[in-house]
This record gives sequence, structure tokens and C-alpha cells, in this order.
Amino acid sequence: MPASEDTDRYRQWLTAAAEEARAGRDEGGVPIGAALIGGDGRVLGRGRNRRVQDGDPSAHAETAAFRAAGRQRGYAGTTMVTTLSPCWYCSGLVRQFGIPRVVVGEARTYSGGHDWLAEHGVEVVVLDDPGCAAMMDAFVRARPELWHEDIGSGAAE
Amino acid sequence: MPASEDTDRYRQWLTAAAEEARAGRDEGGVPIGAALIGGDGRVLGRGRNRRVQDGDPSAHAETAAFRAAGRQRGYAGTTMVTTLSPCWYCSGLVRQFGIPRVVVGEARTYSGGHDWLAEHGVEVVVLDDPGCAAMMDAFVRARPELWHEDIGSGAAE
Repeated sequence: MPASEDTDRYRQWLTAAAEEARAGRDEGGVPIGAALIGGDGRVLGRGRNRRVQDGDPSAHAETAAFRAAGRQRGYAGTTMVTTLSPCWYCSGLVRQFGIPRVVVGEARTYSGGHDWLAEHGVEVVVLDDPGCAAMMDAFVRARPELWHEDIGSGAAE
Repeated sequence: MPASEDTDRYRQWLTAAAEEARAGRDEGGVPIGAALIGGDGRVLGRGRNRRVQDGDPSAHAETAAFRAAGRQRGYAGTTMVTTLSPCWYCSGLVRQFGIPRVVVGEARTYSGGHDWLAEHGVEVVVLDDPGCAAMMDAFVRARPELWHEDIGSGAAE
């Protein structure tokens, strides 16, 4: 585990991602939020899953945060904070653009590509936040068809 | 190599992706195009890289085509056709959503994650189209800084 002062900082960043997730839940959407944090600790962009809100299947939370940050010359020093383990799509985003650190709220309800990212040199911190896990668990139980659509396992239902 | 009647079909689909790429080039953008094809051969969505046009770094061609197709229950039987080997981000998209086939115009000027997709059961067809390669080659020579920004190697310049 990282030093406790780092963990405090990561938990603070996770607060921004969790706010996005709750806003998405309250809109009837998939409750996953994310933020891209600059090397200086400022939020470059934040966003939430917008599949339902925009009818946009590409609008996973990490992609929404990355998009909100706009064009960047590079991603050295940045951190992607997300309430849930990133799927292959958003893990590919992190690897392609050289985002060096990912902070994951929880990976209990779904485990995507974060181990793969760690194997490829990304610093991965899983906070195992009970609030994030409870929000996802409630969502998956209430809207399984929407959840499976969002992670591409809809047709297997 | 696939049977020649399949190759003819793939080349026809590539035409749609190449039209998108040329439109992007003519707009001053990154000249990469893609289309998501349904199991019945109809175009579900098509798009082009829109980094420059929309200031959107997530708008890689495959993501743009996937987005244009809107919400789908599943991706069984679909094909992603793209003028260029998909980067890790767009390869992750294909894997996450279970798109079973990728047709790649060319992988000479850039090789992304198509071998990784093949290892994970995706049918990958590389057409090695000289027109696609020539268009990318001219772009990379003319706008290297934009190209490196688009694939996340900008800071390494």
C-alpha cells in the first residue's frame, strides 16, 4: 500500500469521482464516475458514464473524464481516478495515452483491466471503498440488463 | 487469408472507412476512418477521428463509429472496419464489447493492438491497402506533432 499521506490524497480525488457517480445514479444512469488529475493535483477533467443520458455507449466514465480534459500534449504525471475497476476499453485508454497512475475505488463488483495495466507499468491503487461498492452493488441488482449492456455482455443474458 | 468473396466484401466495407478518413484529412484532421458493420452487412455507424475538429481526444475513428451506432443490445456478428491498426484504446473497445471481427486497412504506418485481439479470439483481417498507407504516411510526414499527440506519444517528442 502507498504511504498514508498518498492514500489520503487519493481518497480526496476519489470524492470527485464518487460525486460524478452519484449524479449519474440520480439521473437514472450507470453510476460510475471518474476524474483525470494533473501532476499538480488539479482536476483536468471529470465525468460520469453517460450511456443512458446521451445514448452514447462510448461514454464510459474514464472516457468522459479524458474527453472533458480536452487535448493535452501528454499525460506525464497524471492520475485517472475512477469509482470502479476500468473495463478493457478504458484500460486501453490509460495504456495508450501513457497515464502513469490509476486509482480504483473498488474492484469487488467488477474487475476489468487494472491487473493488466499494472503488468504494463501503470501504478495501480485499489482503495476498496465500501461506499463505491455499495452503490454499484445496488445498481447491478436493480438494473442488471443495463449493466450488462454497458459492459458488452448484454447479448449473453 | 479469407476466401476471395469475403475479401471483396471487406474491401467494400473499407471503402466507407476510407471515405471518412479522406473527409477528415480534408478538414485538417487526423485521417483515420472506421465503420461498424452489422451481421447483415449494413453500416451501423461510421465515423472519423475528430481530435482537431471537435477538440476531443477520445474521438478516435473506431470510437466515433461505435458511438454513431448508438446503444446496442450486443455486438454478435458485427465487424469493425478501420483504415489503420487500432490503438490500445480502440482495441480495448473491440475486446470489451465482444466485436468478433476487425478488418484493418493497413498496419504499416502504425501497429496497435490487432495481434493482441487475435490472441483473444477476435478474427483479424489486415488488407494492407496501399491507398490507406499512403494517406497515413503523407499525414505523419506533414504533421508529426499532431500524430504523436493523437497516439499519446506527444510528450516523448
